[in-house]
Amino acid sequence: MKKIFTLTALGLLSSSVYASAPKNIIYMIGDGMGPAYTTAYRYYSDDLTTKDVETTVFDSILTGMARTFPDDHTYVTDSAAGATALSTGHKSYNGAIAVDTAKKPLETMLEIAKKRGMLTALVATSQINHATPASFAAHNVHRKNYNEIANDYIDNKINGRLPVDLLLGGGTDYFKRNDRDLVAEFIQSGYQYSDDLSSINSITSIPALGLFAKIGMDFAIDSTPDRLTQMTNKALSLLEKQNKDGFFVMIEGSQIDWCGHANDIRCAMGEMDDFAHSIQAAKNYVDKHPDTLLVITADHSTGGLTLGANGEYKWDTEVIKGVKVTAERLAKKILKHQDINATWQKYVSWPIDKTQLQALSQAKEQGKDALFDAVKAIINSKSYTGWTTGGHTAIDVQVFAYGQGSEAFRGHLNNTDIAAKMIEYIKQ
Amino acid sequence: MKKIFTLTALGLLSSSVYASAPKNIIYMIGDGMGPAYTTAYRYYSDDLTTKDVETTVFDSILTGMARTFPDDHTYVTDSAAGATALSTGHKSYNGAIAVDTAKKPLETMLEIAKKRGMLTALVATSQINHATPASFAAHNVHRKNYNEIANDYIDNKINGRLPVDLLLGGGTDYFKRNDRDLVAEFIQSGYQYSDDLSSINSITSIPALGLFAKIGMDFAIDSTPDRLTQMTNKALSLLEKQNKDGFFVMIEGSQIDWCGHANDIRCAMGEMDDFAHSIQAAKNYVDKHPDTLLVITADHSTGGLTLGANGEYKWDTEVIKGVKVTAERLAKKILKHQDINATWQKYVSWPIDKTQLQALSQAKEQGKDALFDAVKAIINSKSYTGWTTGGHTAIDVQVFAYGQGSEAFRGHLNNTDIAAKMIEYIKQ
Repeated sequence: MKKIFTLTALGLLSSSVYASAPKNIIYMIGDGMGPAYTTAYRYYSDDLTTKDVETTVFDSILTGMARTFPDDHTYVTDSAAGATALSTGHKSYNGAIAVDTAKKPLETMLEIAKKRGMLTALVATSQINHATPASFAAHNVHRKNYNEIANDYIDNKINGRLPVDLLLGGGTDYFKRNDRDLVAEFIQSGYQYSDDLSSINSITSIPALGLFAKIGMDFAIDSTPDRLTQMTNKALSLLEKQNKDGFFVMIEGSQIDWCGHANDIRCAMGEMDDFAHSIQAAKNYVDKHPDTLLVITADHSTGGLTLGANGEYKWDTEVIKGVKVTAERLAKKILKHQDINATWQKYVSWPIDKTQLQALSQAKEQGKDALFDAVKAIINSKSYTGWTTGGHTAIDVQVFAYGQGSEAFRGHLNNTDIAAKMIEYIKQ
Repeated sequence: MKKIFTLTALGLLSSSVYASAPKNIIYMIGDGMGPAYTTAYRYYSDDLTTKDVETTVFDSILTGMARTFPDDHTYVTDSAAGATALSTGHKSYNGAIAVDTAKKPLETMLEIAKKRGMLTALVATSQINHATPASFAAHNVHRKNYNEIANDYIDNKINGRLPVDLLLGGGTDYFKRNDRDLVAEFIQSGYQYSDDLSSINSITSIPALGLFAKIGMDFAIDSTPDRLTQMTNKALSLLEKQNKDGFFVMIEGSQIDWCGHANDIRCAMGEMDDFAHSIQAAKNYVDKHPDTLLVITADHSTGGLTLGANGEYKWDTEVIKGVKVTAERLAKKILKHQDINATWQKYVSWPIDKTQLQALSQAKEQGKDALFDAVKAIINSKSYTGWTTGGHTAIDVQVFAYGQGSEAFRGHLNNTDIAAKMIEYIKQ
C-alpha cells in the first residue's frame, strides 16, 4: 500500500507518465449521443425476462464526461464546431470545418497521423463529407460547402499524398459531379472503389473508397441494421492487414443525431444499436491488439431527449420496441395506403385507439409533415419519451476509453482536451 | 512502465486494494441533480467578461456515472427508492424508506456507522424526515408517513442510543405535534436544540437538533442563499470537535429537485449554487483532513431539464441571472400588486413586451397557478430552457469523489454499488 501511495506521490501513476503512446487509435463519435441516449439504449436493450437490468458496452468503458461549448458564450455547439474541437483541440464557431475563428486552417489529428506515416481512415453513415468526418481531413469556412469539402479529400495533400487512405460512407452525389468526378480521380490515384454495401468485400486493400449512398445512408431500421458495424469490421480488417506504423481511424455513428433532430426515439435506438455493435467490434480488436487505444465520445446531445415525460414515473421500452420502422417511413406508408389502421398494424406491434386514429386521419389530410408529427406524437406520448427541440442542447457528453493510454481520459474534460491528448500520443 | 503494468496485471492497483478505508465519510446527495443541472450550473456561473468558460467544483472531482432504476422495469426512480439504494445498497420500490420489496427493514450505512461508534449526522434543506435523509435513519413502507419517520429518529435505537447525533434541516411541524413532542424528547435525551438558523451558533456541541422551518426551508434565492453551506460548515466543525472514531454525515441539496418539479430554472440555479458552495466547504475539509472520503451523487434527474429549446442553438444565462426570486414568489407578488409591469421590473432585470404582459394579465385573472405557469413560460422561453415533465426522468446521474478511497467510484456504477463500497469502508 505505502509503496503505491509513494508512486502516486511521485506522479508515476499520473496518466501522462503511466500511459505510453498506443500504436493504433480508434476514435468513435456518436453524433448527438448525449447521456440520455446511452441511458435509453441500456433500458431499450434490457431483457425484461430477467430481474436485473443488463449493462451495455458503453457502461463497461465509461471514463468521464466532456463540456462541448463552441468558441463563444452561446454554450450550444453544432457538429462542425464540435468535430473541429474533437479533431484539432481548438474551439471554433458553429459551422467551422477545421478552421479557427479567423477562418485559418487548423491541423487535425488525422493529418498529423498521416504525416507520421500512419494509415488513416474515415467511416460514417452520413455522406463521408458531412461535418464530423470532414473536420478530420478537410478545411472549410462552412460545413454546407459539401463539394469543396469532398474536393479536399483529393486536393488536401499530406507529403504529396491523399490525406485519407480509406473512406467508407455515403455521398456519390458529391463525388460524381458534372463539374468534377472525384471517384475517377480516386481510382486514378490507385484507390479501389465500391458503391454497393452488399459487395463491400470487393474492397480487398487500402487505399479504397466506398460510397454506399447518394447522400447519407438509409436509417438502420429502414435498411441494413448493422451497416456501420459491417463498415467498422471491414475498416479494421483492411487497416490491420496493411498495418506497419500504426493507424488512425475515425468512425462516426452519424445518424443518432438525425433521429434526434426528428425526435424519433425508435429511429435513435436503431442507430444506437448499430453504433454499440460497432464499438463492441472495436473493443474486440483492442483485446486482440493491446497496443491500440479506443476513445468514444459525442459532439453534443440532440433533441433534448428525456426518458420519462408528462409527470409519469415510467419509460415504456415495449412501446418503442413495437415500432418496426422510422416514423418518417411509417408516415409515408400511411400516406400511400387507404386503410390507416391496417398500415399501422403492419409496422407497429401495438394497436391505436379511436382518438389516435382520428389524429392520424386529420393529419393525413394536412399532408406528409403533419402526419410525420402525428405519428411521433403517438409513439412519444405512449412511451413517455420527452423532447424539447429540433436542434441541439448544451448538456455535457460522456467519454469512454479502453486500451493503451485510456487512463488519460478519466474525469471531467474539455472536448478539446480529448483531441490534445490523442495528438500528444500520435506525436510520440 | 513495465513494472507499473505488472502491478496493474496483479490487480494491485485495483480500487479495492489501492484504497484503504477512510476515517470519516461525507456523503452529499443533490436531489434531482441530473447531468443537465451540473452543466447548467457551469454555464450559469460562467464569467462572461472572460473568453473561456470557468469550470466548477463538480468538474474538479467527477469520477463516473450511475444508473438509478428502482426495483422494477419502469426505469424511473423516486427519491425514496433512490435514497434507499444509496443508503443500503439495495434496490426497492418507489416510496420505500430503507425497506425492501417485501417491506422488511434494510440496514443503512448510517446505522452501521453508529454501531461502529462513529458520530452520525444528517443535514438537509427539506424537512429532515423527508425521503432522502429518512432513508438513512428510518424504516417505513412509505415516504409520506412523515410522523412515523420522525418518530424513528428517537425510537430506532442503535445499541440503546439514538441513531443520529446531529440533525439539521426543517420540520418542526412533524417534531412538535399534539400527539407527541419529539423536540422535548430530544432535549430530554441531551440534545441541544435550535429552531432559528440565524442563531445556529447557539449549537455548540453534539448531540444536537436544529429545525429551521415548519416543513422544508425556504428556497435559497427567496431566503438565505447559503443556508445549506452554513449548515454544512456547522456540521463539519461540530463533528470535527468531537471526532474520535470517525464520523458519517449525509448532506442533501434537497430542493434542486423541488425547483425541477416546478420547472423553475432560476430556482434550480439558486439551489445548485448553495449545494456547490457546500461541496466546496466539504472539499476544503478533506484537504485539511486527508483521511476523509467525500462522495457526491444524485438520486435521479428531475423535470427533463434541457439547455437549449425550440430549435435555438443557445442557452441564455443572462436572462436567468436577471431573475431575482423564484417564479412562485414572483407570481405571488404580481397577484398582490395592481401594476404587473412595475412588479416585474422590481424582481426581473429585463423588461417584458406587450405580448408577455398580456399573457400575464390573462393568467392573473385565472389565478395563482395559471400565473405561476405564465411567469415560468416567459423565463423558460426567453432563456431557451426546456422541460418535459413535472416528475423525474431515468437518465444516469454523475458520481463525484474526492479524498481517501475515492478511486473506488470511477467509471459506470449501479447506484447500489456506491452504497456497497461505502459500507465496505465503514465496516473495515
